[in-house]
Amino acid sequence: MLPRERIIDTARRVFRSYGFSPIDTPALEYLDILLGKGSAETDKQLYRFQDHGGRDVGLRFDLTVPLARFVAQHIGQLGTPFKRYHVATVWRGENTQRGRYREFMQCDFDTIGTTSVAADIETILVVNDLLSAIQVGGFTIHVNHRGILTGLIGKLGLAEKTVDVLRTLDKLGKIGPDGVMEELTRVVGTKPADNEQLLALSTLDGGSTEMLAELEKLVASNDLGETGVKRLREIVQGVAAVLPPGANERVRIDPSIARGLDYYTGLVLETTLNELPGYGSVCSGGRYDNLAELYTKEKLPGIGASLGLDRLLAAMEELKLIESVRTPAEIFVPFFASDRLAEYQRIAAELRAAGLGVEVYPEPKKLGKQLQYADKRGFRVALIAGDNEFAAGECQVKNLATGESTTVSLAGGAAELVAEIRRILEK
Amino acid sequence: MLPRERIIDTARRVFRSYGFSPIDTPALEYLDILLGKGSAETDKQLYRFQDHGGRDVGLRFDLTVPLARFVAQHIGQLGTPFKRYHVATVWRGENTQRGRYREFMQCDFDTIGTTSVAADIETILVVNDLLSAIQVGGFTIHVNHRGILTGLIGKLGLAEKTVDVLRTLDKLGKIGPDGVMEELTRVVGTKPADNEQLLALSTLDGGSTEMLAELEKLVASNDLGETGVKRLREIVQGVAAVLPPGANERVRIDPSIARGLDYYTGLVLETTLNELPGYGSVCSGGRYDNLAELYTKEKLPGIGASLGLDRLLAAMEELKLIESVRTPAEIFVPFFASDRLAEYQRIAAELRAAGLGVEVYPEPKKLGKQLQYADKRGFRVALIAGDNEFAAGECQVKNLATGESTTVSLAGGAAELVAEIRRILEK
Repeated sequence: MLPRERIIDTARRVFRSYGFSPIDTPALEYLDILLGKGSAETDKQLYRFQDHGGRDVGLRFDLTVPLARFVAQHIGQLGTPFKRYHVATVWRGENTQRGRYREFMQCDFDTIGTTSVAADIETILVVNDLLSAIQVGGFTIHVNHRGILTGLIGKLGLAEKTVDVLRTLDKLGKIGPDGVMEELTRVVGTKPADNEQLLALSTLDGGSTEMLAELEKLVASNDLGETGVKRLREIVQGVAAVLPPGANERVRIDPSIARGLDYYTGLVLETTLNELPGYGSVCSGGRYDNLAELYTKEKLPGIGASLGLDRLLAAMEELKLIESVRTPAEIFVPFFASDRLAEYQRIAAELRAAGLGVEVYPEPKKLGKQLQYADKRGFRVALIAGDNEFAAGECQVKNLATGESTTVSLAGGAAELVAEIRRILEK
Repeated sequence: MLPRERIIDTARRVFRSYGFSPIDTPALEYLDILLGKGSAETDKQLYRFQDHGGRDVGLRFDLTVPLARFVAQHIGQLGTPFKRYHVATVWRGENTQRGRYREFMQCDFDTIGTTSVAADIETILVVNDLLSAIQVGGFTIHVNHRGILTGLIGKLGLAEKTVDVLRTLDKLGKIGPDGVMEELTRVVGTKPADNEQLLALSTLDGGSTEMLAELEKLVASNDLGETGVKRLREIVQGVAAVLPPGANERVRIDPSIARGLDYYTGLVLETTLNELPGYGSVCSGGRYDNLAELYTKEKLPGIGASLGLDRLLAAMEELKLIESVRTPAEIFVPFFASDRLAEYQRIAAELRAAGLGVEVYPEPKKLGKQLQYADKRGFRVALIAGDNEFAAGECQVKNLATGESTTVSLAGGAAELVAEIRRILEK
């Protein structure tokens, strides 16, 4: 939980620094708000029941559907652009696997009410800031535009088979290009020449400039496709104009990214960890131009992304990026002289007032036992004071990493003590 | 949500400063973990259903039952003392009222594995720090010891009627002393002389020293009662030895506090807001000497308290202690010159790197419209730069509260800009 809280704090700090405000919505929504809004899968996985008033309710399976409901209901008072983040638990009754649990936490941020490319660019900047600040190691933000693939599919006259084509192309990572070719022919019934074009687009690789040129050729003369390539160019160039070169290398055009969810209409993005390429995306999102249409007639375009907190934590554990601290406080005060409790607690209170975290052991056990506890929990400094020290108006400050002790005077208040502790903690 | 997050952050900071570590447990527990652990009431209010594997599950109704389950399961690895805090949502299918919702958030902290008075004293210190740091205005921490009332009840030979006596005494605030006398006679069947003693104890008022002396007299010769008074004296004196006099006045002995929950065995406490005396407790808790007995044979004493976050927020709203900020960022960058997006975003990125929160408006609308938006959201500073400013390498910094603008050079990077913004924000 300590690293988990650290990540949540970091995410909130980054979201806030861009002007996103926090919202919260109830975990329980009316069932008809949730049903039919994700996929057949999410419908099946819903945790649902009747409440005490006989109302059908369910636990949310993501934070996007509650956002759409919330925005549809309140956009009049909220005004646009409405930028919110939401860090909360969601539930899916599915089989668990590595980094996937039935109850898990998502960190979403979205900008509602603008179709401007500025919001697309900003979304990528936020993802970059977010994963940099969380210190996940190397990562890659894969970007694509839904119009490009949809455009090519339309150009090939396969519009009616879009879902099947996308589903098959989505398996590229799993079954490889040959598998995809075979499945396109067998399941979708497309011609070999079309399959080659679809695959050519999905497997395109290289620098942004050359890829955009290639994509332009592939979708040439299809409006949707051309608009998609143009927008993707604006986004990629816009990001490049803001990020320093080193950071900018993290953003890559990846035409194989489709994002299963139907509601995406523009930019789509996924983020992978360079050291765990097979792990899948830890932060995904995209532009949806009418998410709230199920709940309101007003047209509410939006763009956002979601950090899969528990997935990311599992990945960071695997990469040994998680420190194993077991206490949020760094200073330990043994309860040494059994009639001095108030004095220990007063010293602790003074250090807390100076912004330090201090735990006083609750029982006057043998010092060795108490220091064993301190060691197990990972405290960094112990303050040891017995009758002799109190008589002399001083205190021993023990660096628990090195075992070194220094004697500090308490005569002029806690200032000297605070300075000595800070000196050790800053090492 | 902005003040809510501020309170949660504050609570976590205070808990951590005493060495409490965060934990989280699933919102869903197996039904048999939850049933029969609170009261007939909480059983009835449970949100429950069968999951996809046919298991009976329920949404937790408090954070104490999951703590008991968690501790019973993991105490071997955790070791004692185990100090944890838990900030999470709980659910009760009950009728809603002011500050009471079916889904609400609690902030609990507990110390498990010690019977030491040090932990009792510390619990009161934490509550005092917590409510001081949240800035709720004046508050009073009412403390009592369960043994005192139970001792007197035993002394009067009413041990078998304890539950009925406590339930009736608990109504003192609602039905007054005469009502309590009448109900004790009618429902419990106690004698007038006993009723008077019970009421004398419950309505005792005054300074700690004299109250402790009075309580001692009332429970004289009853072991449980005498032990209770002795412990309460140690606690109250222990707190007084640590808190400065002004803060210490907040802690008051209140023999009418019983806390309905059966599991309390020692210190019990409630916290009321001085400006809203009828509102009830916003932070309550106590010592329980065998909470985990339902799940383990090991004896696990503990003490803790729970801050009712949503109740407290409702109270603070009533007291107008909640600021109405609508943005977590303080600086607004209008999208003024329509081909300068990258420049606005770069300035914003530099300010964020300096720790400032900045929102760039996503569309190049008329400046007036954008400033209206800034006003509605409550930004404090706007950075205005058009072609002229960019040509001159400068930027206008507008204090949105006063309307004053100053011109700042961007020539040497953002340092001068950061300084000017800080100057305005610090006013």
